[in-house]
Amino acid sequence: MTNTTSEAVVLLSGGLDSSTALAIAREQGFNCSCLSFSYGQRQERELAQAEIIAARAGVSRHLILPVPLDRIGGSALTADIAVPKDRTGPEMDSGIPVTYVPGRNIIFLSLALAWAEVIGASDIFLGINAVDYSGYPDCRPEFLSAFEQMANLGTRAGSEKKPFTLHAPLIHLSKGEIIKKGLELGVDYSLTHSCYDPAEDGACGRCDACRLRLQGFAEAGLPDPVRYRETR
Amino acid sequence: MTNTTSEAVVLLSGGLDSSTALAIAREQGFNCSCLSFSYGQRQERELAQAEIIAARAGVSRHLILPVPLDRIGGSALTADIAVPKDRTGPEMDSGIPVTYVPGRNIIFLSLALAWAEVIGASDIFLGINAVDYSGYPDCRPEFLSAFEQMANLGTRAGSEKKPFTLHAPLIHLSKGEIIKKGLELGVDYSLTHSCYDPAEDGACGRCDACRLRLQGFAEAGLPDPVRYRETR
Repeated sequence: MTNTTSEAVVLLSGGLDSSTALAIAREQGFNCSCLSFSYGQRQERELAQAEIIAARAGVSRHLILPVPLDRIGGSALTADIAVPKDRTGPEMDSGIPVTYVPGRNIIFLSLALAWAEVIGASDIFLGINAVDYSGYPDCRPEFLSAFEQMANLGTRAGSEKKPFTLHAPLIHLSKGEIIKKGLELGVDYSLTHSCYDPAEDGACGRCDACRLRLQGFAEAGLPDPVRYRETR
Repeated sequence: MTNTTSEAVVLLSGGLDSSTALAIAREQGFNCSCLSFSYGQRQERELAQAEIIAARAGVSRHLILPVPLDRIGGSALTADIAVPKDRTGPEMDSGIPVTYVPGRNIIFLSLALAWAEVIGASDIFLGINAVDYSGYPDCRPEFLSAFEQMANLGTRAGSEKKPFTLHAPLIHLSKGEIIKKGLELGVDYSLTHSCYDPAEDGACGRCDACRLRLQGFAEAGLPDPVRYRETR
């Protein structure tokens, strides 16, 4: 699947998944423009990593857009709600967590869509995966199909020119499989940031994002190259 | 249709249509929370009007969210592209105008949806109408249905609790009919702002928004109470 001229917008948080999605989009031959958001997230330091990752990948453009979702609130990532720690697998599987940010993927995809329309891209990549974030409604395949349909009705480019396609190449992969795939493609995971509750001396190692990441590296049989501040 | 306890989010630009949509939502008994956007629009002074309109209506909340769509560009309203003037009806009907802002309604509805989820509202009102903005793909009824479906798959509230409903009460009304309806409900149109290219001494009277507004008042057999700066 090589397409050397098509433009794609890649949602890049600076985390493990979106960095892998970027590598996959590049492998598929897309000219990638990365889009990140400063949305009042607790883990805002992920943006510095996103900048490094985009620069190393030599992408055409990297836009960091401020969208103050903290003024909307309603999530442990954007409001004064504690980030859950030390949750076990069954706990993580039980319902939608408080780290769910209302409407986040819908908002991010909408902005990606607008930018794609302006720069002439018909393809949008995002690193969501159904396996580890089974609790998030905006990571489900049926949501993605519905978004695509809506996008093609609600935009000039989608309705008049070429329809938009959302690519979620990780959606059926486990964290371990994502890491293996990324390593094959040369992703440097030491640059990626996953922790929901980071500090100067490293990732917490105890939030859902850290735990899923660590499980993924364990599954892949590899050490996680990022620094953790607490004994796990 | 009276529902004295339900919460609704109303997208309020400060223009004629959204001000009328707000009056209709209030007539239907909703507790209204208004959402406006500072998106780098040329006609940013509409926001001051939105504040006055929301305050006069005594709404529960009014949130003005900055979303810098001018960093995405691609429209005469957000980039350095001239606003068309003196276009006739057939010209206005021919295709999507340069004042189309890529993804705007999708982005605004996504943010409204997020806020609705946080404040516990299941109803979202917007003042789009198919008649005068027939050129905008994100004002079509089929787009709204697709958005609603996507919203209910992609949010916690929509998928677990009560589905979201989008209300576009003006969608089949002409500008004249909208004005008549608003006047019945006590809307003060002297407070509303429509012009795409305003200046200190008034609205231009020549952009599509002014022309459609003036046609609407003519259709309703009434003078437009706002000030125009140029001889029309």
